[in-house]
Amino acid sequence: MANEQLFSSGALNLWDTNIDRADKLFSGLTPDQLAKEIAPGKNRLIYLWGHLTAVHDRMLPLLGLGPRLHPEFDDPFLSSPDKAAPHTPSAEEIKEAWNEVNGKLRAGFATLSPSDWLQKHASVSEEDFAKEPLRNRFAILLSRTNHLSYHLGQAILATK
Amino acid sequence: MANEQLFSSGALNLWDTNIDRADKLFSGLTPDQLAKEIAPGKNRLIYLWGHLTAVHDRMLPLLGLGPRLHPEFDDPFLSSPDKAAPHTPSAEEIKEAWNEVNGKLRAGFATLSPSDWLQKHASVSEEDFAKEPLRNRFAILLSRTNHLSYHLGQAILATK
Repeated sequence: MANEQLFSSGALNLWDTNIDRADKLFSGLTPDQLAKEIAPGKNRLIYLWGHLTAVHDRMLPLLGLGPRLHPEFDDPFLSSPDKAAPHTPSAEEIKEAWNEVNGKLRAGFATLSPSDWLQKHASVSEEDFAKEPLRNRFAILLSRTNHLSYHLGQAILATK
Repeated sequence: MANEQLFSSGALNLWDTNIDRADKLFSGLTPDQLAKEIAPGKNRLIYLWGHLTAVHDRMLPLLGLGPRLHPEFDDPFLSSPDKAAPHTPSAEEIKEAWNEVNGKLRAGFATLSPSDWLQKHASVSEEDFAKEPLRNRFAILLSRTNHLSYHLGQAILATK
């Protein structure tokens, strides 16, 4: 395996591991269990799951892998704090969107070569990218993997 | 910047960002604040801080950057659950060890070239590494950055 490939494969492995962890944690929970707060007065599990789905959905255009699949998740899970949005997707709808979004990301990742990961992402201009080459797709992959870990650390508190 | 360097620098940036976040979160807390649990019956902040220090300390020999600085942190913060160990370092002692360990890691990281990150870490045999080249130093950097995020997600719950 070439050196560039070792770097990108290492990061993709960790993404996959974290998605698997999140699948195991969230997918088996009942709507009652998903309504549990991670700590008193803090976000419910269902909110974290919807939030992660919305953030992952936004990775599709950001990484040039296609249009978003569920922009309707932004209002309840990104713009609004938990319990504030008038309409929130059900556990079943979140589960379906979660699988759909992560499946499309996985398929998109498989089309990217190591050097594709070093290309700019969609939220940085050509001009800025010329000055800041670390604002690439790889940085998005790493930061979203971390974001997932951050919320997994919280979600686990409500499931043990 | 060469491609290999872009990969390793991207991951090192994220490590630095997370260390800064943890510094800001933990270093300004009083011993009383550090005694707060992240959720009822769960780990205290001081335990998470000591735990992160112990895990980072173990990265030194694992990455070939020198011997451990604080093996005495293993018993209270790795082998034992919170509140179980007979002796636990004070907040002041944890802060000092945290800064010392992360400073030594930072200095060590600065000596590694991108291809050094792709060399095996100390817990894998030459034989296994030949078959599984992703068990390299870079994988340790990524997984420990994620581990830090995981616990930061928890720690933030007790500080807001």
